[in-house]
Amino acid sequence: MSEYTVIAEISCAKINPKADLRKACLFGCGVSTGLGAVWNTCKVETNSTVAVFGLGAVGLAVIQGAKMAGAQRIIAIDINADKFEIAQKLGATDCVDPKTLGDIPIQKHIAGKMTDWGVDYSFDCTGNVNVMRSALECAHRGWGVSCIIGVAGELNSLVVWSFGRLSDPKQRSCKFTLSFSFPASGHEISTRPFQLVTGRVWKGTAFGGFKSRTDVPKLVERMLNGSLNVDHFITHNFNGVMKTNLAIDALHSGQCLRAVVSYD
Amino acid sequence: MSEYTVIAEISCAKINPKADLRKACLFGCGVSTGLGAVWNTCKVETNSTVAVFGLGAVGLAVIQGAKMAGAQRIIAIDINADKFEIAQKLGATDCVDPKTLGDIPIQKHIAGKMTDWGVDYSFDCTGNVNVMRSALECAHRGWGVSCIIGVAGELNSLVVWSFGRLSDPKQRSCKFTLSFSFPASGHEISTRPFQLVTGRVWKGTAFGGFKSRTDVPKLVERMLNGSLNVDHFITHNFNGVMKTNLAIDALHSGQCLRAVVSYD
Repeated sequence: MSEYTVIAEISCAKINPKADLRKACLFGCGVSTGLGAVWNTCKVETNSTVAVFGLGAVGLAVIQGAKMAGAQRIIAIDINADKFEIAQKLGATDCVDPKTLGDIPIQKHIAGKMTDWGVDYSFDCTGNVNVMRSALECAHRGWGVSCIIGVAGELNSLVVWSFGRLSDPKQRSCKFTLSFSFPASGHEISTRPFQLVTGRVWKGTAFGGFKSRTDVPKLVERMLNGSLNVDHFITHNFNGVMKTNLAIDALHSGQCLRAVVSYD
Repeated sequence: MSEYTVIAEISCAKINPKADLRKACLFGCGVSTGLGAVWNTCKVETNSTVAVFGLGAVGLAVIQGAKMAGAQRIIAIDINADKFEIAQKLGATDCVDPKTLGDIPIQKHIAGKMTDWGVDYSFDCTGNVNVMRSALECAHRGWGVSCIIGVAGELNSLVVWSFGRLSDPKQRSCKFTLSFSFPASGHEISTRPFQLVTGRVWKGTAFGGFKSRTDVPKLVERMLNGSLNVDHFITHNFNGVMKTNLAIDALHSGQCLRAVVSYD
């Protein structure tokens, strides 16, 4: 790791210098992706019903984005019930642990018990292909849209997003937010074609449909003007490059949403 | 079979009495479905590129609908090259028999050789789950939409669409168009989630998104005012209920698009 990095020009965005880099770095990946999946890829409308599978930072950003978009019901699903408290704080109206449902598949519980025919929008934020199928199949027949955000595969690489100040040498500090990418492995999604023929739409998103150079500065402005709060995503802070491994350990622990490492 | 039938009220549409029932009956299923997949489900725009898999009546209706929507390039795919002549007549700009491509999958031929990155819209009109995957994977990354029209399964049941005159006993003649439905069997569609995460959309359609009671009369009007020609779909005519089995044989032959049986 280094204080310097070489990136493609298109991957470089100029943001408001007033922004706190410890927060701005959140927009490098998962948080923007979750918000954008709701706002850009699916364009969730007021009064929609939404199901969110997986309550990591991406799933929580989906809940926050859906709440901001005016969704009337937001169903949060995770096998770790410890995540339900923050999910509810951000806007989840219902929380479900699929492990508590016995033999009933989660998609049948949502489309059949919790709702008559499913939700308007569902989001997979897990990277698990079986969950992706459940998310699709709990979408409403006729018009339900299901969006894959997680990318299936093994947890095997680390992505570092750097936000630094280029122009002022005195402030050439960098903040990093750590997240993991899941390169595609051999896992495939599948379903019966009937699911699509009866009107469901299966789509996916990369970076939530945001264009990094033009849209990240806008997200930063929203953070600065108070219309987009992201403080709750930062659960861990570390100072110094030598703490990077601790940040990775924190991410693995399941207790961490985002760990920010400051290289001052 | 009978001159009388009991149907749900919502399945009954009143059409212009000037319409020739031998043609109007085409709007009972496949032809409307293909047109509607283009116009309603996918909303194909002017200058789009389109790929159509399977050149039966549904696939040809997709080609006709895409041409009418202003598509600039329409790639027709079938393993029966005899279908290419009518496909071109209806608007196909390119015809491909996947059997002639050797080891190259059709999706790689379309996205890579015929086009740089795939087509804006692709349609499966075969009911074959492997073809559905090819159709998805030849759609353009970033925005390509693939629509499943065929329903996967075994050819095992016959659907009869009846168009008759209810009010005039002297004209209580019925015309039937025969087509086959493919109830879902155990076959499933599958792909790598990466295909969706990189921006492709997978959807399906039933009856092309038309509402039968309100939209079939409009299609019939378009036929009457000359803006929608469907004559080319009728390849076989039979008179009398006793000829029904001949109509079925014709459909099985591969030479037939639609067989109309008149019960005068």
